[in-house]
Amino acid sequence: MMRDTRRLALLAAIAAALVAARARSEQGAGRDDDPARQIRAVLDRQVAEWNKGDMDAFAGYYWRSPEVVFQAGGTRTVGWEAMRERYRRGYEAEGRAMGKLEFRDLEVRALGPDVGYAFGRFHLTMPDGTTPSGLFTVIVRKFPEGWRIVHDHTSAAPASQ
Amino acid sequence: MMRDTRRLALLAAIAAALVAARARSEQGAGRDDDPARQIRAVLDRQVAEWNKGDMDAFAGYYWRSPEVVFQAGGTRTVGWEAMRERYRRGYEAEGRAMGKLEFRDLEVRALGPDVGYAFGRFHLTMPDGTTPSGLFTVIVRKFPEGWRIVHDHTSAAPASQ
Repeated sequence: MMRDTRRLALLAAIAAALVAARARSEQGAGRDDDPARQIRAVLDRQVAEWNKGDMDAFAGYYWRSPEVVFQAGGTRTVGWEAMRERYRRGYEAEGRAMGKLEFRDLEVRALGPDVGYAFGRFHLTMPDGTTPSGLFTVIVRKFPEGWRIVHDHTSAAPASQ
Repeated sequence: MMRDTRRLALLAAIAAALVAARARSEQGAGRDDDPARQIRAVLDRQVAEWNKGDMDAFAGYYWRSPEVVFQAGGTRTVGWEAMRERYRRGYEAEGRAMGKLEFRDLEVRALGPDVGYAFGRFHLTMPDGTTPSGLFTVIVRKFPEGWRIVHDHTSAAPASQ
């Protein structure tokens, strides 16, 4: 009985030490302060919102400003409301669907403690089996409310790809 | 004679004062320090080099690094040499031409004293009369050697446009 108690106490001490060491290493590596990690986490959440079908939550990661810019398909859209409407027409209007979104070959680069950019390939799997895809580049800034996309340039690959 | 000399001296003093005031006002407005102005000037020079047919000078405004990224036409090109080769294949290979380049609707935004981005529409007028165009977004950083494009996302408009 005494030996079991000591063994449990030893295991608990080891576990506590491991937890503390891990917390220190995460802080020491500055993982929470790393802009690239933070931006990647925001894009991961954005994809998760899309795949829940929550376009409002997805669009909420864009800068809610008349100055946010979305360039795609040969057209520049300026302002959050216009951008939200563009997404509505593309993915929520009658006969449209959001599909399942994946980002591939995602790279994130910091430009400072509160600014960075990310680029990659978006890949959609639509209910009808089509798989629209293409390239995107987003510029992201940290605001009091969190990281937000201030500029998005998306170019769809030709349908044959 | 004496009156003419005094009049000239007065005019010279006024002219000197005007020149000094103008120099002060340009410095005071921080025009030389404004990242957006500097980035715009670099893009203007880049267009001028293109229109002289000097692709090397044009490409020299890209970050000469294996990490520079050029996204266009559904393909990501990484590294300065590969990007230069992509421009060669597109505009210098047999049967190709550089044409006359114009940037339209150009907007430049600073993200800090040594980083910013620009976006607009490129418009080419080719010797055969075609006018390829499309959108671009460039991210630009200030290096010891000057401002350089570190990321370019260009999307050609459909040929019908």
